[in-house]
Amino acid sequence: MPPAAILFDAYGTLFDVYAVTALAEAHFPASGESLAQLWRLKQIEYTQLRTLADPDRRGHYKPFYDITLDALRFCANKLGLALSAQAESELMGVYERLDAHPDVLGTLTELKKRGIPMAILSNGNPAMLETMVAANGLTGIFDDILSVDTVRAYKPHPASYTLGTDKYGAKAADIVFVSSNGWDAAGATWFGYNTFWCNRAGLPLEQLDATPKRIGKGLADLAHYLDELK
Amino acid sequence: MPPAAILFDAYGTLFDVYAVTALAEAHFPASGESLAQLWRLKQIEYTQLRTLADPDRRGHYKPFYDITLDALRFCANKLGLALSAQAESELMGVYERLDAHPDVLGTLTELKKRGIPMAILSNGNPAMLETMVAANGLTGIFDDILSVDTVRAYKPHPASYTLGTDKYGAKAADIVFVSSNGWDAAGATWFGYNTFWCNRAGLPLEQLDATPKRIGKGLADLAHYLDELK
Repeated sequence: MPPAAILFDAYGTLFDVYAVTALAEAHFPASGESLAQLWRLKQIEYTQLRTLADPDRRGHYKPFYDITLDALRFCANKLGLALSAQAESELMGVYERLDAHPDVLGTLTELKKRGIPMAILSNGNPAMLETMVAANGLTGIFDDILSVDTVRAYKPHPASYTLGTDKYGAKAADIVFVSSNGWDAAGATWFGYNTFWCNRAGLPLEQLDATPKRIGKGLADLAHYLDELK
Repeated sequence: MPPAAILFDAYGTLFDVYAVTALAEAHFPASGESLAQLWRLKQIEYTQLRTLADPDRRGHYKPFYDITLDALRFCANKLGLALSAQAESELMGVYERLDAHPDVLGTLTELKKRGIPMAILSNGNPAMLETMVAANGLTGIFDDILSVDTVRAYKPHPASYTLGTDKYGAKAADIVFVSSNGWDAAGATWFGYNTFWCNRAGLPLEQLDATPKRIGKGLADLAHYLDELK
C-alpha cells in the first residue's frame, strides 16, 4: 500500500549543510571545512539542548535562524577565528539558500507524479525553509512545509514529529519519513514512522535501538523503496 | 551566605573522561585520541537524544553504562576500528574507574571542612558512580550521590536537576552547582542554580543565553568563589 504521505527532513536530507564550506574557506583559509563541520554539529546540539531543558516548551525555544547564528559565533570563537560582521552576514546568507543535493529536483519531480502528498518536516523556521525551497526551484513540489517552529519543540521531541501525523490524519506507521541524519531517523523510528534513512555520508548505524525500516544512499533508493510499497 | 549545598557533576568535572586515551591508543595505535574524544561526544549525544525523544520518560531511557557501551561501539564502527570483546571489556573497565582530576582530592577534602553538604549529581548510574568514587579514595567526601537514574531523565532535562533541590529542600539559587561541561553549566543555569563553570578545557562560553554565575579554570577557583559567598 502506498504511504499516506512522504515527509522529508530538510537540512542534510534535501539541502547540503556543507554548502557553506567554500565561503567559509574564503574567509578563513585552511579553516573552512572545520568551521562548516563544527557549525553544523553545534547547531544541532543547541536545538536539542534548548528543547531537552524545556520539555513543557515554556521558555528556552529560539527559532532555528537565531540558533544557527549562535552556533556560528561559538564555533568561530572555538576555532579562534575573528568573525567580522560582514563574514557573519555572508555565511548566514548562504545558510538561508543552501544548495539542494543533486538528486533532489529530479527524484522529487518524479515522485510528485505518484500523487502521494509530500511535505517537509524540519527544524528550520518557516521563512528559512520557504526561501531555500524557492531558491532551489522546488516551489510546487511540496504540499506542505511543516516547521517545528509552530510547536516550539526541536526534533526528536515527539511534538515535532506529531506535526506530520496531525497534518495527514494518518498513523505514523503509514507515513514514510525520510532523513539523512542518523539521530533524526532514530527519532522518527521511535515515534513510529516508516523511516527511510538516506545515509548520504555512509555512516554506521546509530546504536540507539531504533533501526530505520530501510537504509539507502540517496533519494534514488527511496524511489525504489516506494515502488516496493505500491 | 554560604550555599545550602554544593553539587558536583561527575564526568569531566571530577573525573577525567579522557583517562581512557592511553588504553585506547594501546589497542588502536594512532586512533586512541580520536576514539576517546568521539566516544565522549557520542555518549553525551545518546543521553540527550533518549531523554529528548521521551520527555514523559516512558520508554527510551537506558542506564549510562549501557549508553556508554553503545557509544563506544558506534565510534569504533565510525573510525573503522575492529573492537574485540577484550578491547571493549578493557575500555569499559577503565571507564568505570576513571581517574579523578588532580585538584579533586585536595580541594574537596578542604571544602568538606566547611560543613556545607556536598553531593554528586550525575548522569552516571549509581553503580558506576560508587565504583569511581571508591577507586579514587573519595569515600566519605560526599553526603549524597544523586543519579539521574532514579528519575530516568538525563541532563539538562529539569527532572535531573530537581534531584538536588528536592534532596536539600532548598531553592536552586541557594545551591552551588559545579560542572566542567558547558552544556551542563547552561542547563543548571537555566534551572536556576548558582552555577560555577569549571572550564578545565578553556573553551569559549556556550551561546545559549545562560551565563554561569562564575567561571574558573579548576576547583581552586571554586574554593575562592565559596569564600566570597561566606
